[in-house]
Amino acid sequence: MTVDTKARLAELRERMSAQGVDLVALAPSPHMDWLVGFHPMLCERPCLLLVGPEHEAFLMPALNAEGARESTAIPFYVWSDDVGPRAAFAEALANVGGTAARHVAFDETMRIDFAMLLLDALPGAKRSFTDDTLGYLRMRKDEREYAALKKNALIADRAMQAGFAAIRPGMTESELAAIISDHFSAEGAPMQFAVVATGPNGAFPHHHTGDRKLAEGDAVVMDIGGRTDGFPSDITRMAVVGRAPEGYGEIHSIVERAVQAALKAARPGVLARDVDAAARKVITDAGYGEYFVHRTGHGMGIGGHEPPYITATSDTELAEGMVFSIEPGIYIPGRFGIRLEDIVILRADGPEILSGLSRDVYGAAIPG
Amino acid sequence: MTVDTKARLAELRERMSAQGVDLVALAPSPHMDWLVGFHPMLCERPCLLLVGPEHEAFLMPALNAEGARESTAIPFYVWSDDVGPRAAFAEALANVGGTAARHVAFDETMRIDFAMLLLDALPGAKRSFTDDTLGYLRMRKDEREYAALKKNALIADRAMQAGFAAIRPGMTESELAAIISDHFSAEGAPMQFAVVATGPNGAFPHHHTGDRKLAEGDAVVMDIGGRTDGFPSDITRMAVVGRAPEGYGEIHSIVERAVQAALKAARPGVLARDVDAAARKVITDAGYGEYFVHRTGHGMGIGGHEPPYITATSDTELAEGMVFSIEPGIYIPGRFGIRLEDIVILRADGPEILSGLSRDVYGAAIPG
Repeated sequence: MTVDTKARLAELRERMSAQGVDLVALAPSPHMDWLVGFHPMLCERPCLLLVGPEHEAFLMPALNAEGARESTAIPFYVWSDDVGPRAAFAEALANVGGTAARHVAFDETMRIDFAMLLLDALPGAKRSFTDDTLGYLRMRKDEREYAALKKNALIADRAMQAGFAAIRPGMTESELAAIISDHFSAEGAPMQFAVVATGPNGAFPHHHTGDRKLAEGDAVVMDIGGRTDGFPSDITRMAVVGRAPEGYGEIHSIVERAVQAALKAARPGVLARDVDAAARKVITDAGYGEYFVHRTGHGMGIGGHEPPYITATSDTELAEGMVFSIEPGIYIPGRFGIRLEDIVILRADGPEILSGLSRDVYGAAIPG
Repeated sequence: MTVDTKARLAELRERMSAQGVDLVALAPSPHMDWLVGFHPMLCERPCLLLVGPEHEAFLMPALNAEGARESTAIPFYVWSDDVGPRAAFAEALANVGGTAARHVAFDETMRIDFAMLLLDALPGAKRSFTDDTLGYLRMRKDEREYAALKKNALIADRAMQAGFAAIRPGMTESELAAIISDHFSAEGAPMQFAVVATGPNGAFPHHHTGDRKLAEGDAVVMDIGGRTDGFPSDITRMAVVGRAPEGYGEIHSIVERAVQAALKAARPGVLARDVDAAARKVITDAGYGEYFVHRTGHGMGIGGHEPPYITATSDTELAEGMVFSIEPGIYIPGRFGIRLEDIVILRADGPEILSGLSRDVYGAAIPG
């Protein structure tokens, strides 16, 4: 990914100044990708990008230095396995003017062993995360980011259809996930995750895809995503094997109405919590409120989950260009779960859905 | 993975007591897998396993609670997206007797936003990582762990051979990695990483596999790993396309001698740094010391990188049952890199190599 690091650093510093943040510390993460267009491989060796009021610096493990040097002109403070990172870190911190920082914003994904370098060096500093700086700046996507997200969404649609076409009673969740993975790979967008949750497993929103065999009458939650061009996809659709379980149709239509209520509520200027409330009201009014155990959605960009989060308490004001999921669900313990998820980009007149795939349940025929 | 959590908690508490640690805090990670046999999906929602002197508790996001309940009887302190984790965390901390903890050992992989809950609650506590507790306990592998690692190593051997067989001038690094990935998948051990670094890219130890096309005369570093049965593999071998580049043979044989020196040095009772020194001396004496830019190896178990680290400064005393890599390398900027990596388990009389694959360079023929 090629990015205009100089322009993005300027945007970041303007925001840091407005928020009273005098040091931003990033780990190899989507924030780093956004700012400099790449990240060194994340391992247990501390690697940090420090951004001070005027200067920036990379704390860089020696074995990544040669490779990373091709991607950025930011000064490196290199440390080797035999010496450790402390001296190089101290020098980097001093050279970005961070030695007396009063307010440090941490990349929220940073490993605590990396962060401890900063916590030890700046014991009295105020600590926060990047919600108000990088998180804020990254929420609104430009048309190039939109194009990459749209491309990924259409690949995910086709991977989902490959999954639908393969469903047979007797196959395992893992086998179905492997077929979806093969499709993602064939389109050059390696699969990043697949929650394939069949029958009662569907009642676990984060089910670990496993060895359960699909059986006639199963509802199947398929929540899948791949990644190419530096951006991800994320979509959830439902299938049933043969005849749907009792009560399925009614609950599917409640979840569908919740999606539509959220789509209708999502407009520039509206608070994220009002979108959550719109979806939740449909489900609560239908008597299933206690079975909708998560927020309505999450933002998506370089990172799979990022601001804006669509929760019951979020005061984030939605704006044009924001990209987020709408994914209400109802989970009936011991029976099945139903979740329908679309990624949308917010336009002036409302959300544009990236996927072209209907949210209807896919009915997999029983062969023979 | 089924584990005897009660026995492992007892082992952990004995070690905590010996080290003066009165609270261990784990994130979804290999440490959690080792202790309780599973981990909930890691996302941005704080999920912690707190272990106090007598009690333990899970801080658990609501949407993972139903699924996780099937895997453990440890008490859950559940929080939902609309309320946030603070109150549940405070209750969990109090109930493991952690409110006045004086020494907290953090899972070093924990996200700083999870860790901040503890840092805010225990501002005066001593902070350390798990090297002396979980890291220490997990270094020595039992025969069940050995069996899983051995199985993975042999799958990786076959994936490597599938890669060797596919090498052709004109294919890209990514295409070669995809063939290796297909092999891992076909054996039920999804690929976790593949550094395929061709020609001058080989000089970057952590090269991002990319679009460079293989050409005649390229040396190819292939560092690959998959995962099944809860354990990983990790192996590096070399290939050349047609005629090897000038000087290749000499440097390959230096790296091979460095591997052999490390294998010879690695005995129970020896310090990890002496194994690093043995490999490094061969390379330094041959005049390439400055081109060996990383440690000699890392431990491997549930985690791909874990103690013991085989570095120039490690005082860890090696013992029977420890599993670690030996992977010296020489990286000539602009030309090529050579790394040879084997995973070994330390036996009473020395290291047993898990792979059955020769460390000789694989010569890929030029077709036609």
